[in-house]
Amino acid sequence: MFELIKQSGRSRRGRLTLLHGVVETPIFMPVATAGCIKGLLPSDLVDIKAQIILGNTYHLFLRPGMEVIKHFGDLHQFMAWPGPILTDSGGFQIFSLSRLNKLTEEGAYFQSHIDGSSFLLTPELSIKIQETLYSDINMVLDECTSHPVSYELAASSMRRSMRWAARCRQAQTKPELNQFGIVQGNVFEDLRQESCNSLMDIGFDGYAIGGLSVGEEKNQMIDMIDVCTSILDPSRPRYLMGVGTPLDIIEAVNLGVDMFDCVMPTRNARRGTVFTSQGKVNIKNSRYKFDDSALDPNCNCYTCKTFSRGYLRHLFISGELSSHRLLSLHNLNYYLHLMEEIRTAIEQDNFQELLSFHRSIWDK
Amino acid sequence: MFELIKQSGRSRRGRLTLLHGVVETPIFMPVATAGCIKGLLPSDLVDIKAQIILGNTYHLFLRPGMEVIKHFGDLHQFMAWPGPILTDSGGFQIFSLSRLNKLTEEGAYFQSHIDGSSFLLTPELSIKIQETLYSDINMVLDECTSHPVSYELAASSMRRSMRWAARCRQAQTKPELNQFGIVQGNVFEDLRQESCNSLMDIGFDGYAIGGLSVGEEKNQMIDMIDVCTSILDPSRPRYLMGVGTPLDIIEAVNLGVDMFDCVMPTRNARRGTVFTSQGKVNIKNSRYKFDDSALDPNCNCYTCKTFSRGYLRHLFISGELSSHRLLSLHNLNYYLHLMEEIRTAIEQDNFQELLSFHRSIWDK
Repeated sequence: MFELIKQSGRSRRGRLTLLHGVVETPIFMPVATAGCIKGLLPSDLVDIKAQIILGNTYHLFLRPGMEVIKHFGDLHQFMAWPGPILTDSGGFQIFSLSRLNKLTEEGAYFQSHIDGSSFLLTPELSIKIQETLYSDINMVLDECTSHPVSYELAASSMRRSMRWAARCRQAQTKPELNQFGIVQGNVFEDLRQESCNSLMDIGFDGYAIGGLSVGEEKNQMIDMIDVCTSILDPSRPRYLMGVGTPLDIIEAVNLGVDMFDCVMPTRNARRGTVFTSQGKVNIKNSRYKFDDSALDPNCNCYTCKTFSRGYLRHLFISGELSSHRLLSLHNLNYYLHLMEEIRTAIEQDNFQELLSFHRSIWDK
Repeated sequence: MFELIKQSGRSRRGRLTLLHGVVETPIFMPVATAGCIKGLLPSDLVDIKAQIILGNTYHLFLRPGMEVIKHFGDLHQFMAWPGPILTDSGGFQIFSLSRLNKLTEEGAYFQSHIDGSSFLLTPELSIKIQETLYSDINMVLDECTSHPVSYELAASSMRRSMRWAARCRQAQTKPELNQFGIVQGNVFEDLRQESCNSLMDIGFDGYAIGGLSVGEEKNQMIDMIDVCTSILDPSRPRYLMGVGTPLDIIEAVNLGVDMFDCVMPTRNARRGTVFTSQGKVNIKNSRYKFDDSALDPNCNCYTCKTFSRGYLRHLFISGELSSHRLLSLHNLNYYLHLMEEIRTAIEQDNFQELLSFHRSIWDK
C-alpha cells in the first residue's frame, strides 16, 4: 500500500507499506547484489538506517541457486535481513553481464558469467524466482535497450517488454508481494508515453522507469523522467532504476520520483571516491596525507566520527579491506541521509532550496 | 608492571599493567600490520574484547611514515585504538619481506618492498620509531635465523642480536614504555640458554622467545620453549612471537608462556579456514552448501549468532569482502575466547583438562 503524505510542487513525500516493513519515500535502496551489500553487514544497515535493500535476481539465481534459498526459507532469512527487499527481474544483467545467446518472444537464452552454463529466462521464471526469494517488490522482466538505438528497435523492444509485463502479472502467485511494471522506450517521448499507458492498462502496484542512465545525455534522461512522471498513476510509487548521482536523485525527486537504487555509493567507495556535504573527495589524493579532519564534518557515520582523512587515505593506499568497508559505510550513509533531508524538505515545503543547494555543489 | 596472580603447574595467570590499559594474561594479540587488523575495525575489537594489539614497525615506518604518525600524535590516535599496543622491531620483516642488502654490526641495510627505496635499520632507529608510534611494549631489534642453520651461524647471529639488544636498552628515552628483549639461538639448547642469560643481564621489562615456528619440527619448538621458560625471570612476562595454532598456544602456556601473536586467525579466515570448538572448518567445502548451523554452535560472536554456514560459504565462494570480515571476526573471537578459557582454567586449577581436551581436538 502506498500513501501520499505530502506534495510540494511535483515532489512527493510518501509511505510504502510492504510485507516486511514500512518504507518512507523518497527512498534510496542500497544494492546487495549477491545477497550482501559489498563490504557491509545487516548490523551496518541498521546503523545507517537503511529501510529497504535491492537484491539481484540474476546473481542469486545462478549462485547460490534457488534450491539453497528455498532450503533456508527465503532471501531475508538467508542473508539475515528481516526488512523489505526489492529484487530486479534479472533482465538487465542478462543484457549487460552474461553472454546473451538469443532473444525470442518466449524469453532470453543466456550463458552464466560464472560457469558458462545455459539458461532460458522467461517472464514466468523471473517471477517464480522472485517469489522464491520472497522479495517485497518483484520487478517484471524487460529488455533494456542500449543507447543509441533506432526508433524502430526501441519500439519493438518496448512492445515486447510490455507483452512480457502482462505475462509477469499473470504469473504472480503471491499477491502479498508487490509487483512493479517497468517503462521502456529509450529516449523517445511517444514510446515512453505508450509504455506508461500499456503498463497502467495492465495495472501494477508501482511503476519503474527503466533504461535510463545508459549513455544518453543528462537532459534526455531528465526529459524522459518528466514524460513518465507526468503520465504515471500518481497513487502508485515511481521508481527510477539504477540512478544515480546525488544530483540525479534530487532532480528526479523534483519530477515526482519516489524510489532509487544505484551501485554508485559502494562502487565509488571501493575506488576511493567519497560523497560529502562539500562535494566529492578522492581519498587517494596526497593532499589528505596529513589531513586531521573527518571525511565529511557534517556526517555522523562511524567512519566520520572515528577516523581522519589521513588515516582513511593510508588504509586505501595500503589496500586494506577495511577501507572499502569504511568508505562504503560513509557513502551509503550519505545517500540515506540525503533522502532523509529530501523527505524533511518536502514536508516543510522547502525542497526547492535543497535542490538549489545541491545544484550549486554538484554542478561544477 | 607484571603481577603473577596464580600458577597452576608451570602455567601462569598474570596481569600486565601498561600505559594504555591492563592486560590479563595469558593473552593473544591480534595483528594490525599496517595500523589496521585486516577486515576489522576498533569497534569490532571492542566486541570481541581484544585487550592489546600488535603493530608492525617495518610496515608503519615505510607507510604512512613517521612524519604522518607524528602529525596525528601516535599510532593509538592515528588508528583510533586507545588501548595497549605492542610493536615488533621491524627485524623479522626485513629478513622475510624486504630485500636485505647487507647486515653489519651497525644494522640492516634493506630495500622497501613497496617502492625499492633504501634504508638502514639500526637498533637505535628501531627504538626511535617504536617510541614515535608510542607503543606500550617496544621490542628490541634482532636477527631471526632461518631453519635449518649451522650452529656457528646461529651462535654468531644470536650474539650480535644480544649486542643489538643492549644498544636498544641504551637507546630508550621513554621509560614509561615497556621494552622486551628477544631470545634467539635457533634450535640449539645452549645458545638459547646463553641468550636468556644475556638478556637477563641487560634486564628487560619482559622476555620474548623469537625465531620459532620458522620450519623446525614441532617437538623442537616445544623443547626450545621449555629451555627458555625454565631460565627466564619468572617475575617478567614471556612472549612467544608469531605462534601459532590454538594447540601451539595452549602447549606453550603449559610451559609458562604469557603472551602470543599470530596472523593465523586473520590470514586463515581470508582463505576460508575457520577455527571452531569442534576443530577446523573449511567453509569452501560443498558439504556446507545447505548447512543451517552456525560456524561454531558454541561461539557467541556476531558471525555465529547471525549467519549460517550455508550463507558464509556463499559469501566466500562469491568473493564478497564481507566474508573476510565475518570469518576474521570469528577466528579472532575464537582465539580471544580460548585465552579466556585458559585464564579461567589456570585460576580454577583445571588447566590440564583443557590441555587434554585441545590435544584431542587438534592432534588428528
